[in-house]
Amino acid sequence: MKFTINRNLFIENLNNVMRAISSRASIPILAGIKIDLYEDQLVLTGSDTDISIEITLPSSDDLTIESTGSIVLSARFFSEIIKKLPGKDFSFEVISNTQIKIKSENSEFTVNGLDANNYPRLPEISTESAFVIGGKVLREIINETQFAVATQESRLILSGVHFTFSADAIKAVATDSHRLSERSIALNNGPQVATDLIIPGRNLQELSRIIGETDPEITVCPGENQVLCKIGNISFYSRLLEGNYPDTDRLLPTESTTSVEFDLADLSSALDRASLLTHVGRNNVVDLNLDVENQKVILSGTSAEIGNVEEEISFKSLTGDNLKISFNPDYLRDALRASVTDAIMMKFTQPLRPFTVTPNKSDIEFIQLITPVRTF
Amino acid sequence: MKFTINRNLFIENLNNVMRAISSRASIPILAGIKIDLYEDQLVLTGSDTDISIEITLPSSDDLTIESTGSIVLSARFFSEIIKKLPGKDFSFEVISNTQIKIKSENSEFTVNGLDANNYPRLPEISTESAFVIGGKVLREIINETQFAVATQESRLILSGVHFTFSADAIKAVATDSHRLSERSIALNNGPQVATDLIIPGRNLQELSRIIGETDPEITVCPGENQVLCKIGNISFYSRLLEGNYPDTDRLLPTESTTSVEFDLADLSSALDRASLLTHVGRNNVVDLNLDVENQKVILSGTSAEIGNVEEEISFKSLTGDNLKISFNPDYLRDALRASVTDAIMMKFTQPLRPFTVTPNKSDIEFIQLITPVRTF
Repeated sequence: MKFTINRNLFIENLNNVMRAISSRASIPILAGIKIDLYEDQLVLTGSDTDISIEITLPSSDDLTIESTGSIVLSARFFSEIIKKLPGKDFSFEVISNTQIKIKSENSEFTVNGLDANNYPRLPEISTESAFVIGGKVLREIINETQFAVATQESRLILSGVHFTFSADAIKAVATDSHRLSERSIALNNGPQVATDLIIPGRNLQELSRIIGETDPEITVCPGENQVLCKIGNISFYSRLLEGNYPDTDRLLPTESTTSVEFDLADLSSALDRASLLTHVGRNNVVDLNLDVENQKVILSGTSAEIGNVEEEISFKSLTGDNLKISFNPDYLRDALRASVTDAIMMKFTQPLRPFTVTPNKSDIEFIQLITPVRTF
Repeated sequence: MKFTINRNLFIENLNNVMRAISSRASIPILAGIKIDLYEDQLVLTGSDTDISIEITLPSSDDLTIESTGSIVLSARFFSEIIKKLPGKDFSFEVISNTQIKIKSENSEFTVNGLDANNYPRLPEISTESAFVIGGKVLREIINETQFAVATQESRLILSGVHFTFSADAIKAVATDSHRLSERSIALNNGPQVATDLIIPGRNLQELSRIIGETDPEITVCPGENQVLCKIGNISFYSRLLEGNYPDTDRLLPTESTTSVEFDLADLSSALDRASLLTHVGRNNVVDLNLDVENQKVILSGTSAEIGNVEEEISFKSLTGDNLKISFNPDYLRDALRASVTDAIMMKFTQPLRPFTVTPNKSDIEFIQLITPVRTF
């Protein structure tokens, strides 16, 4: 087994495979990266069993393959070594079942490896019900919902985002039962048969990073317990969560008695200052006072230790009944960070009923729900 | 007590005072910043008893003083609040002995404080034996020696840098007994009476950061147990270490049997790669093989777990006897980082005797000494 490759090309792909490799691998071999060399391509594989990533590099001017074979190397050290090599290229040669030699200019590493036969196999997923979506749309919908999944695993199903792909739309919902985010985006070529997938939030974060800032075409292949997303030369496998996701549509309020429109920047910076204090104490709660009569909005936060803060927030419109409501500022901060417009609407019914945060443009299907906190 | 100040001006000075304030303050009031308001100036003070910093801001267009007084505020929260305020200016008003109000645009904080009468007094240091040196020279000599102080406090005196200021030169030495760095720089207006100061290494790091990238004039006032450095409107107080610093001059070898000249970049990157492996095991040791006969230099490092590396390093010249020597790569890395020239000389006598690292220019008085490691 021997190949010579352009170092930057290799590093770029290595970085993506590394996303699947955990520093706390459940079995030692999963702390490694598998390198399979075929006559015409090099395949890198990383996995933490939850996510697996396989990247294929065809032979080219930048990759010369001399002989085939497989080995597993400690991902962490191998990547540190490659990143610090002096030359533009490096050669990689297996010198025994469990040892390789890496050469670049005047630098020569001999590195211990593991037998590739002991590396777990990736699932086989048929492409029968595959469909194609744009990377930009997928990344956007992940970033607008994923933050709202449950991180405590008391209800495992809530640690995933619930996707519904249909011929003309993609809908995603996440909730940790304190707040919820639901987003729908139109699709041109969605699957003919509506497809439901519950994908762990953490895995989606990695997928979003792999998609990056470009807009690649992504082939989604739903399988039994796994979904495979093909992005260029990258195969990204994620475990699926099994079970019934709760019906969240019935939670969304259909009417409101008070509504206010804020510039995102004004509300965000006031919220930032108020939570400076509320983050200190045990009660991470801010109070919002919507005084419709006097057309005044006050946000306040208190910490017994440090003191208190009062913010008069300017707004674009304020209508309906006067209202005082208390909530966790971090939920609203997350909701604002996910916002796609420069101004948002907040709509309320009663001080103890969930309120909504939506774009100030009605053609964007994006609704966030936040449950208030009882403070009396 | 009330003032209004330009927020950026205040933050800049606050950041410097914060350098003296430890997150693990020995007494609660030292987790605070003292604010003294006089008729014509605002004084900010921070201290961890080891370092104290006092900054004076005269009243100006950017600082309006309405009434005088003093208070102590939690440094951490006060600075976070000021940094997040919305406006260009803010007003600060003491509303009771232990409470203040901060206002900026529509944001209003009420913050708990502590009685300033309980804040420790700073030492009084006479300016009688004061002298002036350039900030750039002081920062340079700190950065070239401070890294070599002892961090384990078995010999407290070695945790400081030993400075000798004289009329025409400043000399600094630091050693942790495994390696040593000694640097001398010419002065124009040093003290007429030679002055010896042993200043804790950690304190010098903070002083170097305060000096920053500019070249301010620094007035050094040596006191009994403390030294005061005045830099513009900043008074920086450091504790001095008491006792006799060891005579290090006798440690410096006067001759050598092997010498080699390296480009800094070539040696650094080879060392970086070799220590990738040596950092893993218990033995953080690299081997350097100087083969004068065959004009070849090999640096190697081994980790039982990962493997080994061999680097053939190019050099500018190699003369004397063949030599194999083993040492901690981190000491050489530190020495190279402190280098002031693009190429350095390394001079050796025997495999178990300290070797020197010096600039390749003889007019620069800078010598570093590294003790090798016995590996057999």
